[in-house]
Order: sequence, then structure tokens, then C-alpha cells
Amino acid sequence: MSGEVLGSIFNQNGYSTARMRAVWTDENRLKVVCQVETALAYAMAKAGNIPESAYQQIQARLVPENFDLTQLRLAAARSGHFLAGFVSYAQQLFDGDSGQYVHYGATSEDIEDTCYVMQLKQADEIILDYLEKFGSVLYQLTDKYKKTLTVAMAHRTYAAPTTLGFKLGIHLNELDYLMRRLKAVGKFTFAGSLAGVEGLSTMLGDHYEQVEADFCNHLNLAVPEMYWHTQRERFTEYCNVLTMTAQLLGKLGRNLLVMNQTQVGEFHETYAKGRQGSTVIPTVEEPYMCEAIVNLATVIRNEMPLMYDTMQVTGEKDTTVWRDIYVVLPEITMYLSGHLNYAVTVLSKGYFDTQRMAKNFDLDDGTMYSGAIMMALGKYIGRQNAHELLVRLRVEADDQDVLLWDLYYSDKEIAKYLSRDDLNRIMSPENVLPHAVEKTEKILRLYRQRNGSDMVSSH
Amino acid sequence: MSGEVLGSIFNQNGYSTARMRAVWTDENRLKVVCQVETALAYAMAKAGNIPESAYQQIQARLVPENFDLTQLRLAAARSGHFLAGFVSYAQQLFDGDSGQYVHYGATSEDIEDTCYVMQLKQADEIILDYLEKFGSVLYQLTDKYKKTLTVAMAHRTYAAPTTLGFKLGIHLNELDYLMRRLKAVGKFTFAGSLAGVEGLSTMLGDHYEQVEADFCNHLNLAVPEMYWHTQRERFTEYCNVLTMTAQLLGKLGRNLLVMNQTQVGEFHETYAKGRQGSTVIPTVEEPYMCEAIVNLATVIRNEMPLMYDTMQVTGEKDTTVWRDIYVVLPEITMYLSGHLNYAVTVLSKGYFDTQRMAKNFDLDDGTMYSGAIMMALGKYIGRQNAHELLVRLRVEADDQDVLLWDLYYSDKEIAKYLSRDDLNRIMSPENVLPHAVEKTEKILRLYRQRNGSDMVSSH
Amino acid sequence: MSGEVLGSIFNQNGYSTARMRAVWTDENRLKVVCQVETALAYAMAKAGNIPESAYQQIQARLVPENFDLTQLRLAAARSGHFLAGFVSYAQQLFDGDSGQYVHYGATSEDIEDTCYVMQLKQADEIILDYLEKFGSVLYQLTDKYKKTLTVAMAHRTYAAPTTLGFKLGIHLNELDYLMRRLKAVGKFTFAGSLAGVEGLSTMLGDHYEQVEADFCNHLNLAVPEMYWHTQRERFTEYCNVLTMTAQLLGKLGRNLLVMNQTQVGEFHETYAKGRQGSTVIPTVEEPYMCEAIVNLATVIRNEMPLMYDTMQVTGEKDTTVWRDIYVVLPEITMYLSGHLNYAVTVLSKGYFDTQRMAKNFDLDDGTMYSGAIMMALGKYIGRQNAHELLVRLRVEADDQDVLLWDLYYSDKEIAKYLSRDDLNRIMSPENVLPHAVEKTEKILRLYRQRNGSDMVSSH
Amino acid sequence: MSGEVLGSIFNQNGYSTARMRAVWTDENRLKVVCQVETALAYAMAKAGNIPESAYQQIQARLVPENFDLTQLRLAAARSGHFLAGFVSYAQQLFDGDSGQYVHYGATSEDIEDTCYVMQLKQADEIILDYLEKFGSVLYQLTDKYKKTLTVAMAHRTYAAPTTLGFKLGIHLNELDYLMRRLKAVGKFTFAGSLAGVEGLSTMLGDHYEQVEADFCNHLNLAVPEMYWHTQRERFTEYCNVLTMTAQLLGKLGRNLLVMNQTQVGEFHETYAKGRQGSTVIPTVEEPYMCEAIVNLATVIRNEMPLMYDTMQVTGEKDTTVWRDIYVVLPEITMYLSGHLNYAVTVLSKGYFDTQRMAKNFDLDDGTMYSGAIMMALGKYIGRQNAHELLVRLRVEADDQDVLLWDLYYSDKEIAKYLSRDDLNRIMSPENVLPHAVEKTEKILRLYRQRNGSDMVSSH
Repeated sequence: MSGEVLGSIFNQNGYSTARMRAVWTDENRLKVVCQVETALAYAMAKAGNIPESAYQQIQARLVPENFDLTQLRLAAARSGHFLAGFVSYAQQLFDGDSGQYVHYGATSEDIEDTCYVMQLKQADEIILDYLEKFGSVLYQLTDKYKKTLTVAMAHRTYAAPTTLGFKLGIHLNELDYLMRRLKAVGKFTFAGSLAGVEGLSTMLGDHYEQVEADFCNHLNLAVPEMYWHTQRERFTEYCNVLTMTAQLLGKLGRNLLVMNQTQVGEFHETYAKGRQGSTVIPTVEEPYMCEAIVNLATVIRNEMPLMYDTMQVTGEKDTTVWRDIYVVLPEITMYLSGHLNYAVTVLSKGYFDTQRMAKNFDLDDGTMYSGAIMMALGKYIGRQNAHELLVRLRVEADDQDVLLWDLYYSDKEIAKYLSRDDLNRIMSPENVLPHAVEKTEKILRLYRQRNGSDMVSSH
Repeated sequence: MSGEVLGSIFNQNGYSTARMRAVWTDENRLKVVCQVETALAYAMAKAGNIPESAYQQIQARLVPENFDLTQLRLAAARSGHFLAGFVSYAQQLFDGDSGQYVHYGATSEDIEDTCYVMQLKQADEIILDYLEKFGSVLYQLTDKYKKTLTVAMAHRTYAAPTTLGFKLGIHLNELDYLMRRLKAVGKFTFAGSLAGVEGLSTMLGDHYEQVEADFCNHLNLAVPEMYWHTQRERFTEYCNVLTMTAQLLGKLGRNLLVMNQTQVGEFHETYAKGRQGSTVIPTVEEPYMCEAIVNLATVIRNEMPLMYDTMQVTGEKDTTVWRDIYVVLPEITMYLSGHLNYAVTVLSKGYFDTQRMAKNFDLDDGTMYSGAIMMALGKYIGRQNAHELLVRLRVEADDQDVLLWDLYYSDKEIAKYLSRDDLNRIMSPENVLPHAVEKTEKILRLYRQRNGSDMVSSH
Repeated sequence: MSGEVLGSIFNQNGYSTARMRAVWTDENRLKVVCQVETALAYAMAKAGNIPESAYQQIQARLVPENFDLTQLRLAAARSGHFLAGFVSYAQQLFDGDSGQYVHYGATSEDIEDTCYVMQLKQADEIILDYLEKFGSVLYQLTDKYKKTLTVAMAHRTYAAPTTLGFKLGIHLNELDYLMRRLKAVGKFTFAGSLAGVEGLSTMLGDHYEQVEADFCNHLNLAVPEMYWHTQRERFTEYCNVLTMTAQLLGKLGRNLLVMNQTQVGEFHETYAKGRQGSTVIPTVEEPYMCEAIVNLATVIRNEMPLMYDTMQVTGEKDTTVWRDIYVVLPEITMYLSGHLNYAVTVLSKGYFDTQRMAKNFDLDDGTMYSGAIMMALGKYIGRQNAHELLVRLRVEADDQDVLLWDLYYSDKEIAKYLSRDDLNRIMSPENVLPHAVEKTEKILRLYRQRNGSDMVSSH
Repeated sequence: MSGEVLGSIFNQNGYSTARMRAVWTDENRLKVVCQVETALAYAMAKAGNIPESAYQQIQARLVPENFDLTQLRLAAARSGHFLAGFVSYAQQLFDGDSGQYVHYGATSEDIEDTCYVMQLKQADEIILDYLEKFGSVLYQLTDKYKKTLTVAMAHRTYAAPTTLGFKLGIHLNELDYLMRRLKAVGKFTFAGSLAGVEGLSTMLGDHYEQVEADFCNHLNLAVPEMYWHTQRERFTEYCNVLTMTAQLLGKLGRNLLVMNQTQVGEFHETYAKGRQGSTVIPTVEEPYMCEAIVNLATVIRNEMPLMYDTMQVTGEKDTTVWRDIYVVLPEITMYLSGHLNYAVTVLSKGYFDTQRMAKNFDLDDGTMYSGAIMMALGKYIGRQNAHELLVRLRVEADDQDVLLWDLYYSDKEIAKYLSRDDLNRIMSPENVLPHAVEKTEKILRLYRQRNGSDMVSSH
């Protein structure tokens, strides 16, 4: 235990999920290393580069159960790096000379990089699963609230009527795009590598392309177009999609936090029995999860500078930047697991107080309709003139401390063109419903079409 | 005109002030280069390294008026870098051989670095001036509102009564610290440099320490302890203080934005006649300045990674990182000028709606006093038992949809220990005033003691 | 002139090109704003929302020539933001009431966002053009040097023989990928927007989809699937591809810098007549361009944090993060223009000293072949045993201060399995040529297939 | 085990030291929480706010041994946050009502923040200890090599003669500054906090200043001037000094890496018996530690954006940014421990190959003296004319493929003023020794004066 947030038992669940942490344990790393070294032996044996019997033995004995982690760590420390220690430790697992064929034909970065790809692919499956859960709950809420009137906010102030469902739907539509991007970039990212220290596959012999293809296929990884130890865009681009996804969650979190404010009160994290908000304010229920969602968006995007740094490889192998992915890949996927977990929880357990929302709607002094009035008046006096007229009313309302709403009805210029009934009709929030419903249903339809089979049926 | 925000006439005033931009113009750069090269000639002549007459001529002729900027740019382009072009261009300004003594004994980075220090020192004076103005208006508001009750917010929810003055005072106390830090680090940062490409002052002769001291003194700069072309902490640390200052402003901006929300309405940017918030919502008055303050905190802190990068000098001169300060120093000071300008304006022109604040105060359901009730009850039943009792009331209030406040008075357990009068007394917001006033006055007193003579008397 | 590097006439060409700067001038911004407002009038007239005559007049008079920039800036300052000032200023350009139809049906962010898309698309064309130039010169060098032996470096030390062409080809293959990504993301990014402040297209009437489509088509932009003012992944993802491209250049720059070192001497920036490296080391020729390439990779990637920040929109409009793209979009494309310009120049004008490269090749003490010897020996004694034997020789060579190479030939254990001729054959660098040529030609072929028609024929 | 680099047993020693990790374990956190809650009870009892007997019991029973970590974690999970769980868990440790006085008068952030300060102070002691070790070994090498000639590099090319000791001394002088800064900022940073959720110390009673002072003194922490839960510059500034220190190490690492290159060979990490560099290049000895030093400088500085973010507190408590320090404080100090450990090791175990250095010195073609020749010639023909003459020689040398050095002797213009003996004298590297030694000794003397008592006597 070392106490960084992902390692501390007091903190790790606030930043990640156990399911994702399991991908990155030393135990799983070892397991993946064994799989990758075994795939190497498989491909090399198939090409006749090593005896078939060596592959058989490697397959049988190069398994995590045969390793003592502490001894392995010591071997790695002695040798100077992990793979060197692994290969030397592995020798004792074999009776004859089969151990000599462990790591035969590969360079450390072939194994290390392929292992990271393997683990990242495992992480990817978990992320996609969480994303689908998140998509499902967001879909249902979007649908549920598609006609629930609320306020569109510009610069933190009331701007126009809209619906809660459309607001949520906008997030869904962005998620829809990012999920497609994640799947697309995954196809590129999850490729193996077997090309040697200089990328020329010298140690694989003449049929190197076949050997690499067999190696990758055996691991269920794509076969890369070219050697990529020094071309790291496959990791960077993947992480960029994760990071954009985290920003989407962060945006949602920020909006929920505004709705959580005591003065707004439109959204609440439901508190389970026994949970409390504060040691000194016993009766408060604070939106810790929404705050965590905002925070994790920041923490996750802070990983990206290292992912650009890791692309700056000097020569053919350069630990000054290679080490960046050791830091980032486990962290970014673990953080995102916690992030998505919070997002799913907060949406599926929390509740929207639509009564309060309706009450808050009425805090408007008429401003939300000033655009519509401008458009209506504009037909008679011109849009820009109407704009100026309404700015004048704003000033009057403030100077005289009267309600803007009342001035709409009492202003003589307006009265020339718009009757009281006209104003009533213009200032009906229901006017926005047709477009809101249409647009929201378009979002839902597109999401269904693209994610139909993956949609979680109920929550 | 190139169109980045600081160069665009449509945008630059939204990100900087003309006063600070003047420090970084090509014209002022040229002026400073002339001053620094002249100081070099002064110090070299004083040491007998060049003829006194050469210094006299350089002082007279190496002045901005004698340069044509376009021609100078072409000379620089031809030579490959600015200083080389400058020195070669300068030759034509002299009749005899005095031009040969321009740049005599210096290396380009001596001049370039010293010029950046000179310009940064000019920028520093402007920043300190803005900081004092900001401090003054913050001081006055802190004082004015020191007894104005408002809500302390924890996790965006109501936490406890406090005063607006104390909230503002906390910002003032942080400013107080940062101003002292800026002045302290400036003393270290604003040193000249005359040490040659390898730092050994070879070209200055035996009395190199005296030459460098004369050079620095002539420019009103500190004499450095040691050659520092490859030691860049003096720039990084200075920028860190600027960046922390920007975060203080950002924090203030974030808090003002919450107060600006339509549902809160406790702070307003005053709109000058003719100003409008939106082209489509004619009657809205949006807090653009508060938003700009939040944004600039982000933009400014984003400069810092380059300031750490610039410390990673390879060898004795390394443009891969030196160029970072070309980017950052002008930008960070210009952005901060706009930042402080907005902060001063928004505080001195905007207004706090204390009536609305009082109304919002009453949105509390009793939660703000649950801590005080816990402490009072605790004397009888123990603090933790009181906490549990109050958590129970919270659940009851929510389940039964009754006001928490009412439960305080009706709960039988509470009634055993606290009378109605006791509760009334406990739930008096005025209880916090003595501490609030004491602490606020301490902040004001300390600020006065430390900044007395610089305080702007009235606004 | 404000003096930040992109604005300073002394610095701007070291960070950008005039061609790209032209995209972002206030003049071009104004032109694009006129085009976009005209497209709005076109689409609105087509839908019958405004008179056809109004569109005709707007098309005729809403042109940059009719605007005085300084007056426009004052109008913007008065109104509080650019679009408000623009619309109010525009009124005077019309005789009748046509001016009233300027900006009719749009919100500021519709126009501002669409204008940024328009300018970014203009920038994209320039970037693609530079990328093709860069690709062409890289293609030619890759081809030219595909058989030129040189050293693959691992951790800054000699690792194995390879060819210069393959090393360059790896960069070409990465470029190949990034160009395809840029074109793909561009299709998504370059969409217009006409959806109003809340995204419901209220002001466009029932046929809003048609109006938005006409608006976009008129501007040669894609029609977006959904309202996207609050969904900013289209900007972020585009910038991420630019940033990855900059990292590719940075990697190249870092590798060229190593080759530029006096102790290596394998690459030189050619100095034009009159160019000089230093004011105090007259005879030096320093690789300023390579250094600038490394620096710009850092400067460009430092823009990305703001692009993640800009995704965190609170409510429907939020200048705290919207302002980020005002900063980043002009800067990142301008910086990248300078970056690519340097990269094209340095590769097409610089030269690779293959003689020195061959000499440096011979600095190897035999280490570059220790892998091949291990594999050869491994057939007899096992790979891991061979590894240990060779580690032992390393220690001996160091302890006894003899050449490793000689120990290969004198070691008795090796001699049991490998004859002098065997060793000679193993230690022939030409062994790597077949794979190197095959892989390099694959890279070239793929690049041709994908970029054939865009390839610049000669340099 | 969760697998991020600091948690993985395979990786953690490559990024941190066990000694520093011990500061941040859950076990030590718990211990510190107990200490801080006990100090609270001490101060409250002293003020008569709680019974003396309660303090006695708390002191006796609130100790880590009485807690089961797994149960505590469950209590925290149930309550919603750590402190709430801790207080509720603690109740069972007491027989009577003393448990009710645990956490009496404090808010969670009082305890959490003070605990972070406590742990950071423990980390600080370790860092200072490492810094002193690093200073000692750097001091000794600076002293040892103060007369060892080597090359000053500008833009990766040979610039001028200097000494290895001076190059190292420059790093020592920067360290000297940073150590003083760290000690100074520590005095400010390491203050406790006891001020309640709103900062008004309401729960402490009238003598709140005395209670807070007693609390801090009992913990050996400074008493803060003012409530600081929302003023986070004390953490940010401290981390900035750590980060600058990491950049100093990074700079050293970069320079050592250049010296490690096969083509340079001036520095070697010594390989312990059994350590190997590569699984496929058995005979290579790669500078992993130098690379790790460069990498950690990047990883550490990447923490800083979160430290600026953490200053942006909304309201009186804001977990969206508070959580940043949970991430950063453990990470940055752990990373720096590994960083310093590598730096001390690499300098004390590695060796400088001064013979190779001397050989490399001779790779100069005369360029290193062109500055000195310019100054000498300048006395006769003017500095700028001399510069032009030498640029001409550079071109001639390149065009005719002759050695620049030879042209110095054969050029007729030079010969008019400088004899062969003059040239020999000018081109003596020993010329730089007097200044180099003087400056180096100044650095050493200043370091001794400031760190005398802390200097480690031998290595």
C-alpha cells in the first residue's frame, strides 16, 4: 500500500472501480505477460523458428501460478528491468532447454507494448460496458423529461424556455458520437507488435510478416501495418477519446451541481440510509458525487500532456518518454471507471425535482420571451428597432424597479402592434415544445439505431 | 495584425490592457535593447575595455529613433537571429569605428535575457499598480459589508451563516500574501546578466565582476550571485506568483458568477448605457466580465507548463526551451493585466444586492443551524448522539415533506433539553457577528499595516 | 502591435507563416462574418422568413469594404460584444429597412461558431497543403536513403544496424496515418450551426432543418446532425490531430538535433549566405530550425488543456470556457504553420552527411551485433545461456579494457560453435538490408496509394 | 494492489522510495488523524470546552492500534466520507461518553487539511534529507572537476571551453537557491487549521484564537494568520518549489544523457553485477536511471495544473477542487523521492570518463576559439569586422573542405595582426581556468556557508 488515491483503501473507490483496478494489478500484468510470451512461442514454433515442443512446454509452464511475485520482483530488480528478470526467473520452470526459447525472437518492447495493448483492450471492454449503462440511463431520462419545461441558461442567466429532456439529450448525442469514436479508434489501437529493437524484425527470419500476424491473431489483436514502437499516436488518440468522454461527464456534473445548489434545488443525490453529508452540519445532504464527477474530468484531462510527451521518441527506444504510458494508461482508465460509475449512479439514483423546476421557471421577469417579442415586433418595426425598444424597457424596469413583464403589457409602442392576447400567446413556454420534442426524438432515434443491441433494457 | 486574441483589435481589450501591451511592443523591445547595449558600453568603457568615446557615441546614436523597424527585421532575417541583425544594422549609425564596439564583450543571451528582465520589471510595476487598485476596492468592500449576513456554502449547499465582508476579506488576505510574495520574488528575478556563452565572463577580462555590476546598476537591476542563463527558476518562480494571483481572481470570479445566477441574484455587473447582453435576448444583462475573469484564470495557468519546460536547458544554450519565455512572458503579463482590469472594474462598478441576499438567506430550512443545535444538544446527550438525532430529523423531514425547522421545535427529544427560547437563540444568525467582525478587522488591519502607503485613498 | 510572438514582426515568422496569419486577421474575420450573415439572409429568404429583397441588399452591402474597422471596434466596445456591435453598425449601410433583417433569426453563437468553423476550414486547407509538401520531401528522402546504413539507438546508445531511409520512413508512415485522420475529422468538424441560444431553432420557424441546411450548404459547410454549441468535441478532436502531428514533427526535430551535435555531425542545416549562428562564436552554424521544431511541438501541445476546458460548458452558453477557442484556434493553426514550414525547409535544404554516418557506425564495439550473436549461439547453447555468456564478455571487456569485438573472436566458448567466418557473416551490417528495404518500400507504396494525386512532383 | 506505477511492486521503486511511500500509507494517515483529533481534544480541554477526562481517554484510546482498517473503511463507505466514518467508528472505543468528545468543535476539513499538512511536513523532512545528500555529492563532484576542461555547448554544438566542475557547479548553485526557498515556504505552509466550515471558529467559543494556537502547537505546526480552507496558495507554492527542483534534476539528467550517448561516451551509469541493459542486446549498458530522471521531471511538473485548479474554490467548501490535493500531494512527494534517489545514485555511482572528454574536446575545428580570435582581431580591425572575417573563413572551410583551424593560421588578413604564437596563445583552453575556478569556488563557498552543518561529510 502506498497511499496515492488509487492505492489507498480509503480513497480508491472514490476515484475508480474494483473491476477496472483488477485489469492493472501486478497479478494480471504477469498473466498477460505469460500470454504474450506464449503467443510468441506459438508463432515462432509455427514458423519453425523454435521446436514445437518448446512451445508446448512454454504454454504449459509459463503461467502465473508458477511465479512467486516477490521472487520475481527481486529478479527484476537484480536484472535492471522487468522483462529481463522475468526471462531469467522463468528458466527454472523448465526441465530441459525449453526455457531457452522463452522470449525467443522478441525484444522487451515487443512484449511490454503488446501487454499494454492487451490490458488496454481489457479496460476498453469495461469502459464500453459502463458507457452503455450510462447511455441507457441517459436515454431513459431524456425520453422521460422530453416535455418537461425548464430554462436554458446563457452566461448563468435565464435565456429561453427549453425542456429538461432536450438538455439531457444533448449530452446523449455527444455520448453517441464519442462511443462511435471509441470503437473506431480501438480497432486501430489494439494491435500487437513484434518487430525487434530497430523495427526490422531481424530475429524473426524471412517470414516475419507471417510470424507477427500469427502472434497477433493468437492474442486476438489486430496486425499492425508497420512497426510502431516509436509511433505512439495509437495510444494518444485512444486516450484523447477517453478524455473527451470525461469532459462530457464533467459538463453533466457541472450542470447537475448548479441544479443542486440550495437556491436552485432542482436535482438531488439521493442519500442512502446512514449516509451523512457532514460531521458539523448534520442535516445537510451534499452532492459529493456530482462534485467528484467534475473533479475527475479535471484529473483525467491532466493525463493528456504526458500522452503527447510520449510521442516524442528519440531514437528507437527512449525511456524518458516511454515511462509516460506506464503512468497514464492504468491511471486514465481507472479514473474513468470511477467517473462513469459515479455518473451512472448519480443519474439512476438521484432525482429531478420538477416541481421546484417549475417554480424556478417563474423567477423569470419576462426576459426569456424578449427574443420572441423582438421577432414578433420586428415584423412591424424591424428586428433591430425592436431590439432597441426592448433594451430601453430593460433600463426602465431597473431604474423604476418595476417588473419587466408588466412593462411589456403597458408600453405604448408595443401596444401599437401586439395586443395583450398576442403577448400572452408569445409568452407561452409551450411554444417551444414541438421543436424540443422533435429534436429530442431525433437524438433518441439515432442513439437507438446505433446502439440498439447494446442498450440495457431496464434500470 | 495576426489575429490571435492579443493581436486582434476586436479581442485584445478583452484579454489585456493597452498599458501592458505597450511594454511588449517591438518598439519598446528595440528601446530596451538599445538601453542594454548602451549599458554594456558604459560598463566596458568604465573598465577601460573600450574607448570612452565609443561609449559616448553609442549612447548618442544607439537610440530607437535611428532604426527603421522594417529594415531591422530584414537584417535580422538575413542574419538568422535578432541580435545578429541588430548589431550588423547598427554599424551604419556610426561614422568612425565606434560601431565596432556595439555588443562588445556580450553574447546574445546576455542582451536578450537582460532585456526580458527589463521588460518584465516594467510589467511588474504595472501589475503592482493594478494589484494595489484591486486591493483598495476589495478592502473597501470588505469593510463595508463586514456585518452583512449571508450564507457560507459547502459543496454548493447552505452550510452556516457568515458575512459578505468576511467572504471578501478572505480574498483580501490571500491577495495580501501574494503581493508580498511578488515583491519578494521580484528582488531576485530582476537581475541582469553579463557572463558570456559559457558563463565564464571570458570576454570581460579580469575585473568581470565589476563590469557586470556596473552594467546591472546602470540599468537599475540587481547584480546576480552567479551566471544564470541556464538557471531559469527566477522566471518560473515569478510567473508562479502571477499565476497564483490569477487563481485568486478566478476564485473571486467563480463566486461572483454563482451570485449572478438568475436564481440567486446577489451580484450584478452594472451595464453602462448602450451596453447590451445579447443579440437575441434583448433584455438580459449577462455577467461577461465575471466570466472573463474565470476564463483568464484558466488561460493564465495554462502558461505554466512552458515555464517548467524552459528550465530544462541542455548544454549552455538551448533554444528548444529558451523560446518558451518568448511565448510566455509577454502573454502572461498581458493576460494578467486584462484580468486585473476586469477584477477592479467588476468590483468597483458592480453591485451587491443585499436585499436579495437577505431573502436568499431565508431559503434555509434550518440546516444552517444544525451544527449549533448539535453543539447545544451535545452538552446533554453527547455530540455524536446529537448528530445522529439530527440526521434522523433530516430523514423525517424529507420523508414526511415537512420543514426541518419545524421538527426542531416539535421533536420530543430535543424538547427535553432545549426550550423554544433556547432554539430561537441558537438559530439567530447574529450569533456569528462577533467573530466575523473580529476576523474581518484583523484582515483589514494587517492589510493596512503592510500596504498602508500604497493604498489608493478613494474610488 | 502587441508584442506576443505571433504579433511581433521580429518573432512572428519564427512561429508561424504569413499565409496562415492571413486567415486570422481582423480583416478576414470581418469578411467571414459578412459571408455568414449573408448566408443566413439567403436561407431565411429562401424559406420566406425575410423578404428576398432584404437578402439582395444584404448580399450587396454587407461586405468588408463598407466597414471601418476602428469604428466597428468602437461599436463593439459600446455594445459589449462584437456581434452586437456589428449588427448595430451595419444598420447605417442600408437605406430602407433591410438592415433590420441582418442577423435575423440567428443568435450570436450561431454566427461566431460558424465563423470559427469557416476560418478553421481555411486553415485546414493550408495545413493539408503544408502536410503534402512535408510528405513529399519526406517520401523522397525515405526513398533516397533506404539502403543507407546507420545505427538504431536505444536509450541513446547503439542498438542495431538499420537504414536512414527506414528511420525516416517510420515518420512518413505516421504522417500517413495522421493525414488520413485529419481529413476524416475535418468532415465532422466543418459543420455550420443555426440553432439559437437554446438549440431549438425557435426563430427559424417550422422548416428549421431546411433553413439550417440551406445556410450550411451556401457556406460549403456540412449540415450538423444536431445543435452543437454546447458539444465541443468537434473542435477538440480536430485540435488533437493537429497536436499529434506537431508531436511527429517534434520527434523528427529531436532526432535531427542529435544528428546535429558536433560529436555526431550527421545532419546539418544549410546556412544561406550571410546567415550566421552567433554574435560571439562567428564560425558556428547552429541548428536553430531543428530547435524551433522541437520547441513548437511543446508550445502546440500546451494548447490542448484549453481545448478540454472548452468542453465543460455550463448551461447553454458559457463564456468562461467559450473564450478558450478564441485563444486556441488562431494560435494552434498559426504555430503549426510555422512548424510545418520549418520542417519542410529543414528537410529540403539541410543535408545528411552519410560519410560521417558511416564513420560513426564504426564507433560500435560490437554491441550492435550482440543480439545476432546471441541468436546464432542460442541454437547451440540456448538463447538465455548465450545471453549470459555475452553479458560476461561485456564485463570482461570493461574490466580488462579490451574491445568487446575482439573478445567475440577470442572467446573459447563462442569458438566452439561459431567460426571466425561465422562471426564475420553475423557481424555484417548488410544483413539488415532486405528487411529494411522491404519495409521501407511498403511504407512508400502505402503512402503513394493514399496520397498519390496530392504528391508534389519535385522539390 | 491496484497497479498504477506507485502501487505496482514491479514499478513503484522506479518512481518513488519506500521511505516516502511510508508517509502516505493508510496506516500513517490513520495515525495522523488520531494525533490531530487528540490535539483537538487537548486544546478544547485546555480551554474548558470539554472535560479534561475526555481528553485523557481520547489520548489513550484514539490510537491506530484500536482500529481495524477494513471495518473503518466500511464505516467510511456507509457514512459517505472518511471523517464521518472515523468519528462514528471511534465511538465503540470508549466506555462512557468520552467518545462524544471526539471531533468536538472541529469540521472535517479542519482535520483533513491539518492531516495533509502533517504528512506533507513529514515528507518535507525526507525531501530535505535527500536534497542534502544530493547537494553533498554534487558539491564533491563540482570541487573534484573544477579544473577538468570540457566543452560548453550552445544549440547542441561546440561553443567554448569550460570546465566540468563549473557545469556541475551551476546545478549546485540552483539547488542552493531552491533549498533555501523550500525551507522558507515550508514555514508558511506547515500551519494547522481549526476554523470551522465557514471559517469563523464558531464552535470554539470566545477564546478561539487560543484554542487554535494550542491545537497547532501541540502538533508542532505553525499557527496560521487566518482561516485558510479556501486559500490554497500554501499548498500550491510549496509544490511549485518541489516542481522547480524536479526541473533542476531533469536538466542534469538531460545533460548526462547527452554525455551517455555512444558517440559521446563521457558519462556512464555503473552497472552492478548481474544487471543487464537489454534482453536482445546483451552487451549494452543503457542509462536507464538518467532516462528515469528526465522522465520524472516531466511527470512531476504535470501535477502542477491540478495545484492551480485546487485554488479555485467555490463557496466555503468545494470538493470539485479539494480532491486535487488528495491526488497531488502523495504523488508529487513520492515521485520526487524516487527522482532524488536516482539523482543521488547516478551521481555517486556513475563515472565521468575524463579521457574521452579530452578526446571529444579535440573534435573542435577551431570554432570554440573563434570568439576569442574575434576579440583579439577586433582590437585592430573592429569587433564587427573581425566577426565578418571569421564568418567568411567558415564559408571557405566548408566550401573547400579544409579545417577551419588551418585557415586561422593561413589567412593573410589574420596574419597581419596575429602571429602564429598569438594564435597558439589565444587557442589555449587553459585560458578559461582562472575564471572557471574562481566562479566554481564562489559557488562552493556559498553552498558551504548556507548548508554547512547539513553537509554530509563523505560518500
